[in-house]
Amino acid sequence: MPTYTPPTKDMNFLLHEVLQAQHADIPGYDDMTPDFTSAVLEEAGKLSRDVLAPLNSTGDQEGCVLENGIVRTPKGFKAAFDQMREGGWTGLDCDPKYGGQNMPYLLGTAVGELFVSANMAFNMYQGLTHGAYSAIHTHGTEAQKDTYLERMVACDWTGTMNLTEPHCGTDLGLMRTKAEPAGDGTYKITGTKIFISAGDHDLSDNVIHLVLARIAGAPAGVKGVSLFIVPKYQVNADGSVGNANNVSVGALEEKMGIHGNSTCVMNFDGAIGTLLGEEHKGMRAMFTMMNEARIGVGLQGYAQAEAAYQASREYAKDRLQGRAVTGVENPDGPADPLIVHPDIRRNLMDQKSFVEGARALTFWGANMIDQDHKSDDKDARALVTLLTPVIKGFLTDKGFEMCVQAQQIFGGHGYIEEHGMSQFVRDARITMIYEGANGVQALDLVGRKLAADGGKPIMAFFTMVKNFTKENEGNDALETGFLAPLKSASKDLQTAAMFFMENGMKNPNTALAGSYDFMHLFGHVALGLMWARMGLAANTALEQGAGDATFYKTKLATGRYYMARQLPATKMHLARILSGADTVMALNEEQF
Amino acid sequence: MPTYTPPTKDMNFLLHEVLQAQHADIPGYDDMTPDFTSAVLEEAGKLSRDVLAPLNSTGDQEGCVLENGIVRTPKGFKAAFDQMREGGWTGLDCDPKYGGQNMPYLLGTAVGELFVSANMAFNMYQGLTHGAYSAIHTHGTEAQKDTYLERMVACDWTGTMNLTEPHCGTDLGLMRTKAEPAGDGTYKITGTKIFISAGDHDLSDNVIHLVLARIAGAPAGVKGVSLFIVPKYQVNADGSVGNANNVSVGALEEKMGIHGNSTCVMNFDGAIGTLLGEEHKGMRAMFTMMNEARIGVGLQGYAQAEAAYQASREYAKDRLQGRAVTGVENPDGPADPLIVHPDIRRNLMDQKSFVEGARALTFWGANMIDQDHKSDDKDARALVTLLTPVIKGFLTDKGFEMCVQAQQIFGGHGYIEEHGMSQFVRDARITMIYEGANGVQALDLVGRKLAADGGKPIMAFFTMVKNFTKENEGNDALETGFLAPLKSASKDLQTAAMFFMENGMKNPNTALAGSYDFMHLFGHVALGLMWARMGLAANTALEQGAGDATFYKTKLATGRYYMARQLPATKMHLARILSGADTVMALNEEQF
Repeated sequence: MPTYTPPTKDMNFLLHEVLQAQHADIPGYDDMTPDFTSAVLEEAGKLSRDVLAPLNSTGDQEGCVLENGIVRTPKGFKAAFDQMREGGWTGLDCDPKYGGQNMPYLLGTAVGELFVSANMAFNMYQGLTHGAYSAIHTHGTEAQKDTYLERMVACDWTGTMNLTEPHCGTDLGLMRTKAEPAGDGTYKITGTKIFISAGDHDLSDNVIHLVLARIAGAPAGVKGVSLFIVPKYQVNADGSVGNANNVSVGALEEKMGIHGNSTCVMNFDGAIGTLLGEEHKGMRAMFTMMNEARIGVGLQGYAQAEAAYQASREYAKDRLQGRAVTGVENPDGPADPLIVHPDIRRNLMDQKSFVEGARALTFWGANMIDQDHKSDDKDARALVTLLTPVIKGFLTDKGFEMCVQAQQIFGGHGYIEEHGMSQFVRDARITMIYEGANGVQALDLVGRKLAADGGKPIMAFFTMVKNFTKENEGNDALETGFLAPLKSASKDLQTAAMFFMENGMKNPNTALAGSYDFMHLFGHVALGLMWARMGLAANTALEQGAGDATFYKTKLATGRYYMARQLPATKMHLARILSGADTVMALNEEQF
Repeated sequence: MPTYTPPTKDMNFLLHEVLQAQHADIPGYDDMTPDFTSAVLEEAGKLSRDVLAPLNSTGDQEGCVLENGIVRTPKGFKAAFDQMREGGWTGLDCDPKYGGQNMPYLLGTAVGELFVSANMAFNMYQGLTHGAYSAIHTHGTEAQKDTYLERMVACDWTGTMNLTEPHCGTDLGLMRTKAEPAGDGTYKITGTKIFISAGDHDLSDNVIHLVLARIAGAPAGVKGVSLFIVPKYQVNADGSVGNANNVSVGALEEKMGIHGNSTCVMNFDGAIGTLLGEEHKGMRAMFTMMNEARIGVGLQGYAQAEAAYQASREYAKDRLQGRAVTGVENPDGPADPLIVHPDIRRNLMDQKSFVEGARALTFWGANMIDQDHKSDDKDARALVTLLTPVIKGFLTDKGFEMCVQAQQIFGGHGYIEEHGMSQFVRDARITMIYEGANGVQALDLVGRKLAADGGKPIMAFFTMVKNFTKENEGNDALETGFLAPLKSASKDLQTAAMFFMENGMKNPNTALAGSYDFMHLFGHVALGLMWARMGLAANTALEQGAGDATFYKTKLATGRYYMARQLPATKMHLARILSGADTVMALNEEQF
């Protein structure tokens, strides 16, 4: 089974040399010294490597079991969850008023990657709790906050998000779950929700469900949907766990992957709940969490690719098969290791250059979320809002693709479950679907985000690229390998955006038919910008004679690979976009 | 669970209007009248739809079980196998001397697609038997043929291919399995083989293993490998099944998919075998089957995509979610069906245009195999040999990708096992790996096939494209939508081939680092040529006022989609290729 090596050095490079977090003017960032972040990442890395990673295949093989209405998690999960909780890892960036450690979201994101790479299904229990915590923290009354937040920060109680119903996923306006006022300020919630991650389990003393439902007489569609807090066990006035609520697990779903997480059908039969936020404004309350949640899923995509990459890299170094075409490299062995072969290199470099670029983009996104939340920086908020569907959609599509490539290096051994490569593929697959399927991300990007505020955010992005290339003109280390391809790719993105603007009014299908390609085009340009920035940081370090020159040279070489071998995809996406909607919409429904 | 509709009309279109098989000057082809092929395909389609498809998920869920050394196949497999055998479906294109029906390989391929789409894991039992039949038919002595072939054509006895060992897959020169002459003309085979599909099961009375092994004193490497026939049960002089041979199942592999097929670890402990073909020429005997076997795997890739496409198409028509951006299309329902959304269309059109193009390429390949075998046409042999790694590698990569896209249309419902979409993805994944992993196909294409016979086959392909575009110049229906993109894509392929020739001598890594992209570039051009031919046939039919104009118009529209939306990939692959090997090979092993 794969082992996991926490990439803490790469993370510190991003935090300190690329983002220069400690010197950014954001409240709380001055604490982020290299010593501090190293200490945090080292400890989180140990937990990930030694406790979580070894449980990853256990979770996959055992899965969760529903017995007498109660969900049992795989062997070892409870002890590991306690260890995580006792180490204070569940409330890193949470409000200190409720026991949180008030660290930047950026650092929480880095730690999150380590946990997710080691064991994605396991980390979802606390990930969903964090989402529910944020919703209550932002929209809850003081009483609600006092009742729930301290226990949720500590993960004594975990949280869920109940949106989907059997007949409606993306289109939440079709929702049927009802909320009836009980007369005492509470509501009785009745309905069935499906695909509820961490819906029930044996890791915590209570499960706090956030449930979207429709109050009788509410307006039709999504404008009549409200959000409720519905605990599994009611909470007594003294804060202790009380009687069972009318909430039950209808079934556990059999899934392609993330077997270690309990995906439940939840039945609410007049369960007691309290309104979170305003009546009929439930969607708004959910959407304030959306950027974070979607960036979190983008992170899952590349974090799985990181774990899969590490396994395939080790296999490529160990497995002896064939001889290098340029001459024997392992004369004492019966064959050379796989890694001598150019096509294996291509595969590994695809993975490595994607993961490192994706990490940079995600960290930058987290950085901007801190700027938004801690400095009320509206420009940062607008830019991260624009980039969120790209981070979610592109990083999960590519993350999955890279897991498939990693599996491929193992040949037949990758197809059997024994080596754990199938699990990475099966687990990563869900990230393209949940928290808004990637087609919906593309629609959100092109249909909503692109034209937001008169297109200012996308213009700001283009300006950022332009300024970067201009400022570094004449830098020989960057010119050919980084700046030229970035400029060219960015121009493709501008052409596509312009095409949408010119044609989208006449025929909205033109933009929507190209939305998926636009999301990928944007993703490549964003990763190109990230690689250019990493290239600059690495080159600066080399010029300044920093130690470990090999590390920086490797960064430069990996970046050059991305620019030469991945950025050309922008031309393909642009051509598809410019072909318009005609061929896409040519058939009648009956012709399919 | 998905139902399956045999695409017999599309198949007949290819056989009669595109390939014009009946009028091709190939022995046996004159029997292929539309009435005849329709009758065969209808019957095979019924069996596929009514018997095999309903067992597909059973096979996935139950899998095979090893009990007391004996493998039990899933419920219903035995009865279905008997039905297939009794219907004479197992020997369609086999030698009538041994009970075969002597039909063209082309027609056998069409029938094979139906079976594979309906139930890939099930069809492997007879598919592997067919491969072993071919090996014995080509290389066996008269005595061997008399002993085995009639039973294998009838699938009373099934066959296997035993190549892989734990430490060697692609690099068969490392093989350790030994063959010792027993003194009576037979050999004693000793060793362990892994990943043996259909290695043991309860569907037939005997299993005839073809085993690669090394005779004591043989030259090192692949030049010292011989092929042996090693039956599970020895065969008595009268042809009846005799004593057990020293062959046993070490274990069943737990795999990501194709659970309905028994993938075995096989142990040979001095098992009695007879030499098939010449001593030390085992690889050659295997390789004569290679074109067929690899085209068969390419077929599996697109056949799974066909089944997944059908399921996603039906779901997109049924599932109500959101409203069309251009105006409500289902005013009486709570929402419009998914299929109104442009990005869902893009997804479906990707699938449809790929599958139909892939089918055309595969049928054309099968057609050329008939030309080779039945007419000894050396040009056809050379061209199909060149195209084989493209058919195997490109069609399985894309077939898998399309299964993932089909799954995506189901959203969360695609991720749970209930709808069967996960199975298509998990089953299709193996096609990229077995029968030579796709990286090996790319290596074979660029390292071996491209330069074969001084590059004549690839030049013949280019000439074919050129002649086609020239002959159809001025045809308004084809000019913009088909000929122009085909010319441009073909030029990209020529540029890439030229680049390899110019640089490959100086630095072989240059060609190898671009081999995977070359395989995909070639695949797109080949499918582009297929679509241009189908476009011509459809347009001709329309001009001649053929019935069912909608069918032909749909073909033209689907082809235009492929040309506009898929062929632009050639530019990306070319750019990657032209970037050379430097960025690919820049890192030392330690830098990964």
